[in-house]
Amino acid sequence: MSKIAESTVRRLSLYLRFLEEFEEEGIATVSSDALAQRGGTTSAQVRKDLSFFGSFGKRGLGYSVPELSATLRDILGLGRSYRVAVIGAGKIGSALVNYGGFVSRGFHVEWVYDNDPAKIGTSWDGVEVADLTRLERDLQCTTPDIAIVATPSDSAQETADRLVAVGVKAILNFAPIQLSVPDDVTVKNVNMAIELETLSYALRNR
Amino acid sequence: MSKIAESTVRRLSLYLRFLEEFEEEGIATVSSDALAQRGGTTSAQVRKDLSFFGSFGKRGLGYSVPELSATLRDILGLGRSYRVAVIGAGKIGSALVNYGGFVSRGFHVEWVYDNDPAKIGTSWDGVEVADLTRLERDLQCTTPDIAIVATPSDSAQETADRLVAVGVKAILNFAPIQLSVPDDVTVKNVNMAIELETLSYALRNR
Repeated sequence: MSKIAESTVRRLSLYLRFLEEFEEEGIATVSSDALAQRGGTTSAQVRKDLSFFGSFGKRGLGYSVPELSATLRDILGLGRSYRVAVIGAGKIGSALVNYGGFVSRGFHVEWVYDNDPAKIGTSWDGVEVADLTRLERDLQCTTPDIAIVATPSDSAQETADRLVAVGVKAILNFAPIQLSVPDDVTVKNVNMAIELETLSYALRNR
Repeated sequence: MSKIAESTVRRLSLYLRFLEEFEEEGIATVSSDALAQRGGTTSAQVRKDLSFFGSFGKRGLGYSVPELSATLRDILGLGRSYRVAVIGAGKIGSALVNYGGFVSRGFHVEWVYDNDPAKIGTSWDGVEVADLTRLERDLQCTTPDIAIVATPSDSAQETADRLVAVGVKAILNFAPIQLSVPDDVTVKNVNMAIELETLSYALRNR
């Protein structure tokens, strides 16, 4: 899908966060050193990461904060808005939708689905929770850019299949299973258990 | 801290999840092929990952499901329970505490802190939300094994400093900033914005 390693993309995303903090503090230029320090990396790494995308900054002067953040926003595909569907109106979905950085980065939740009659019809931050059986009818005409799978594990694969069938190309998966999807669909997994287990592994092997 | 790559540890954590599913289905032995297929990897990778920790399985017979899961639990440090403190009684913390795999893997939330008077004193799944000012007094005697930082960004570093000062050695950080901690403290970051941005990057560069 792209030749840039995911680890690089993740660092670019972090740099952008720091640049936005510098912007808020009214700082106009920043050195690769300052970015590196904030990100727990080296200035050589910062320069290497940015060099994939062209030449930035002036020797001895550093990077212009507004210019570099605009460029990073563009590289990261943040220059547009994304229509998001959330499948599973539980706590994880709710945490995500209420997450500060979500709307400000152009991610707009336009659909929320659940199969629990107690949840269907309730309002979720202005979006009405719809019956999961309506998914195909709704999404076949207007396909979301990103779908968030926040269902129980045992229905996550079926949910992903239905999303792929209506044409969804990017899935953020919170269910603790590995989803099988065609090659042209990108899946990112957020797995709380794995994060915790890398911690318990670190504690056991210290 | 350990010579095994984090990517290996993450796969071990996934394998354990699959083995537990096989156990539930009453399957007694499993091939590296079957594990690989479920995990979206190759059988060579599965054998290599497991070989770091000794010799498992019998040629032609595959792995014993209960034996291999017991071994993985041990490797991952899941043979014990962990006392967890959550700082920030918001939606992210709540999603995590209510997350199914949490208690079943031995992670027990024993402390929840917030600085919001409306939250202090309320019960959180049986744990009373305590005033953040009490953190040192409470945790200096009984230090949590793991602390979860689910505060706003601008207080996350100060929170981490206070946790490190009372002796916490493992932090799961949900705030979208890079925490600075001493070398003997392990931090894992769960950053929703970064996950979303690797997706938007993928969509932009497809």
